[in-house]
Amino acid sequence: MNAPLATELLPRIEPRPVPAAMLEALKARFGERCSTALAVREQHGRDESPYDVPPPEVVVFCESTEDVAAIVKLADQHAVPVIPYGAGSSLEGHLLAVQGGVSIDLSRMNRVIALQSEDLTVTVQPGVTRTQLNNEIRHSGLFFPIDPGADASIGGMCATRASGTNAVRYGTMRENVLGLEVVTASGEVIRTGTRAKKSSAGYDLTRLMVGSEGTLGVITEVTLKLYPQPEAVSAAVCSFPSIAAAVQATIQIIQIGVPIARCELLDANAVRAVNRHDKLSLREGAMLLMEFHGTPAGVKEQIETVQQIADDNGGLAFEWAETPEERTRLWTARHHAYFAGLQVKPGCRTVTTDTCVPISRLADCLLDTVAEADGSGLPYYIVGHVGDGNFHVAYLIDPNVPQERETAERLNLQLVTRALGLDGTCTGEHGIGLHKMAFLVTEAGAGAVAAMRTIKHALDPKNIMNPGKIFAA
Amino acid sequence: MNAPLATELLPRIEPRPVPAAMLEALKARFGERCSTALAVREQHGRDESPYDVPPPEVVVFCESTEDVAAIVKLADQHAVPVIPYGAGSSLEGHLLAVQGGVSIDLSRMNRVIALQSEDLTVTVQPGVTRTQLNNEIRHSGLFFPIDPGADASIGGMCATRASGTNAVRYGTMRENVLGLEVVTASGEVIRTGTRAKKSSAGYDLTRLMVGSEGTLGVITEVTLKLYPQPEAVSAAVCSFPSIAAAVQATIQIIQIGVPIARCELLDANAVRAVNRHDKLSLREGAMLLMEFHGTPAGVKEQIETVQQIADDNGGLAFEWAETPEERTRLWTARHHAYFAGLQVKPGCRTVTTDTCVPISRLADCLLDTVAEADGSGLPYYIVGHVGDGNFHVAYLIDPNVPQERETAERLNLQLVTRALGLDGTCTGEHGIGLHKMAFLVTEAGAGAVAAMRTIKHALDPKNIMNPGKIFAA
Repeated sequence: MNAPLATELLPRIEPRPVPAAMLEALKARFGERCSTALAVREQHGRDESPYDVPPPEVVVFCESTEDVAAIVKLADQHAVPVIPYGAGSSLEGHLLAVQGGVSIDLSRMNRVIALQSEDLTVTVQPGVTRTQLNNEIRHSGLFFPIDPGADASIGGMCATRASGTNAVRYGTMRENVLGLEVVTASGEVIRTGTRAKKSSAGYDLTRLMVGSEGTLGVITEVTLKLYPQPEAVSAAVCSFPSIAAAVQATIQIIQIGVPIARCELLDANAVRAVNRHDKLSLREGAMLLMEFHGTPAGVKEQIETVQQIADDNGGLAFEWAETPEERTRLWTARHHAYFAGLQVKPGCRTVTTDTCVPISRLADCLLDTVAEADGSGLPYYIVGHVGDGNFHVAYLIDPNVPQERETAERLNLQLVTRALGLDGTCTGEHGIGLHKMAFLVTEAGAGAVAAMRTIKHALDPKNIMNPGKIFAA
Repeated sequence: MNAPLATELLPRIEPRPVPAAMLEALKARFGERCSTALAVREQHGRDESPYDVPPPEVVVFCESTEDVAAIVKLADQHAVPVIPYGAGSSLEGHLLAVQGGVSIDLSRMNRVIALQSEDLTVTVQPGVTRTQLNNEIRHSGLFFPIDPGADASIGGMCATRASGTNAVRYGTMRENVLGLEVVTASGEVIRTGTRAKKSSAGYDLTRLMVGSEGTLGVITEVTLKLYPQPEAVSAAVCSFPSIAAAVQATIQIIQIGVPIARCELLDANAVRAVNRHDKLSLREGAMLLMEFHGTPAGVKEQIETVQQIADDNGGLAFEWAETPEERTRLWTARHHAYFAGLQVKPGCRTVTTDTCVPISRLADCLLDTVAEADGSGLPYYIVGHVGDGNFHVAYLIDPNVPQERETAERLNLQLVTRALGLDGTCTGEHGIGLHKMAFLVTEAGAGAVAAMRTIKHALDPKNIMNPGKIFAA
């Protein structure tokens, strides 16, 4: 693979100014909900990616689909970029205003519109966060399983095709979005999908929008699948003598078909960071965090099988999180891993990898990566949705030391090259954004990326929808 | 809904002749694999839909991706339509040469290319049929669950986003295709997806191609998810005093979250036809055919729950298909329902409905439909993947009596109108084809269909890929 380092790929910034007429129209319609204050713009001009890019020119806080459509119509008229903003938790630079324009803040569109518990579906506005959603539907006995590390917005999770710790059993946003309402590049409002569980009615616009990173439209409403809260839930941690042993156990668990709900790897560095951040006392070695969902008898069967596999791979005794509170504490700690990691090296930023490979290739992919990371001199930690073949190496870099960033990007390139050689992908769940545009071409091939670009140009001829993401501008 | 009857919607036939130069080029490359014999063309010019349309001008039997690419390049050069042909089992007119052109017969591309049992994936050529696939991988302990009624080809199943009896547990082609090789409208070969279980790498071209009915490209290779053959399998039939009772039981089974593998409704007419065709002696009333997959203990739990629900709804005692042979006999009979039904009225053809609604709306949708069908005077039967909210009314019509077709189409329109009003879809698994183009507009809305057309025009500017399907030409 001859892909250049990701740092070389940042598009040159060619701002497309918001004309005075458009700014006046926005102010006239939105009043104080339209802000050009620097602090507000800066807050909307960065995310958790390692980039610093000028902020958007304007931020508008939307409260309705009509608000979004009105902004996009103006943007279309004036050929000005728009960037949807949810919770600001992207890791790949999705939110950065590389060509200026308007940040469409959707965080106030945070209503659960309709819970149809008798169909196991819910319709929400895009600014609803995953924890808010589960809090608001808990009474129904249902839950929504997809849980990226951050408390992301549902709209953002659609846009990046997010997943998280439960995907090994419940799938990703790809499998769990039934339909969308979308404002297209012309400002028109369309609906994709219905509440039917399956359909063969024309092109799958829902799946096209899921993972399109704001480049094809702004998602203004989402209908999701829900699941009955399992009758029985058990969670455990199990330490292993090495990462290799933990990975081998994982591979066997998946290959034998255990319907495990969560199967997460933490390396010793991650456990250490999480212990410190969340005041836990987990054994500081390679570890699997697991959860089992089902009937009491079904959970018991799963655990027996997994304990046997863990034993065969040198795993220590399971430590159980017995109560709901203990489980919440454990998984909250897991979800804090990113912020816990940041505290290891004050002032650092992270370069986070996201490869995903077929399960039988996981050991090949992960163990060589650990050796490279160890040899790099950079502090790092690893967390992984290993049941899916997906893991993250987070390199902690000093943003003021270019060499550290270069080292991290080189290691990422080596890892991506390895993963693609193992029939895998450069990104399991974070998306392409600014960071992986070259990797996308290597992974999908020039012809497939050309097909994607053709779709982009056809649906967004003025290139106003989050331009410069997925493809260079 | 003011959609016209489907019969009014058949596009006028405007054949686009295959120029002599192209025909010569095809003959030079393909020799005897290029046929213009009327019998061969007629065989490729119809399917199981109720339409008669002139056949393609030429049929080419492909043996490789390069064969397909060569044909499409010629077709691009000469602006001639191409229509992929797999097993010929479409129900919606997908294969009909409404604008003439070349039928690309893929049935000889029927190799299982690679079984990666350690990853639960398999890569196949598009002409492999579903039963062939399961026969060839049986030794691995894995299986592929998607099973439309016909022994369809995997390529065709991708093209129509097919499902079948196992979808209630295992999903449809939407969820079970990992990646594709596709020949685009310019004759270029692209790959979509990898063997990674999940990915956020750019637009989901895999899901865009799945369900595109040959209108965006020709699928030449498919990578599928597989599943471990369950440790325990039990199948049973249960008769109910009425369709209403069987449907109520189904709704409760799904809402309570039983991971049932199959949950199929047959009405008394369907049972009668199947009994006669497959020499069975099932009780001739409304019936659920069910199958349970899991560990022995898990299956036992599922059965206890479902038996209780059946009892509560007046179900008779379960009759068990105890042995693998008995199960095969039962499910083969279910898969024969279509052909069994045809024999009820010699010389008939069927108009088959395919609505799918959220599970809580199933009774509303189905019971009013039964009343209408009973009042119509047409013979009919009903089979349904009711666990998914999907069912088929097959109206048996005399193709020489226009009034029968009109009646059937009117009933279909009424059913679709009802299903859309219940947040459902006009087609759960058969596709749009020629038959449901007006329904698609009503269901998705003009704006969403315009977005689909925009994609079609961008990716196939000469409109050579199965033109006149999904959208009127």
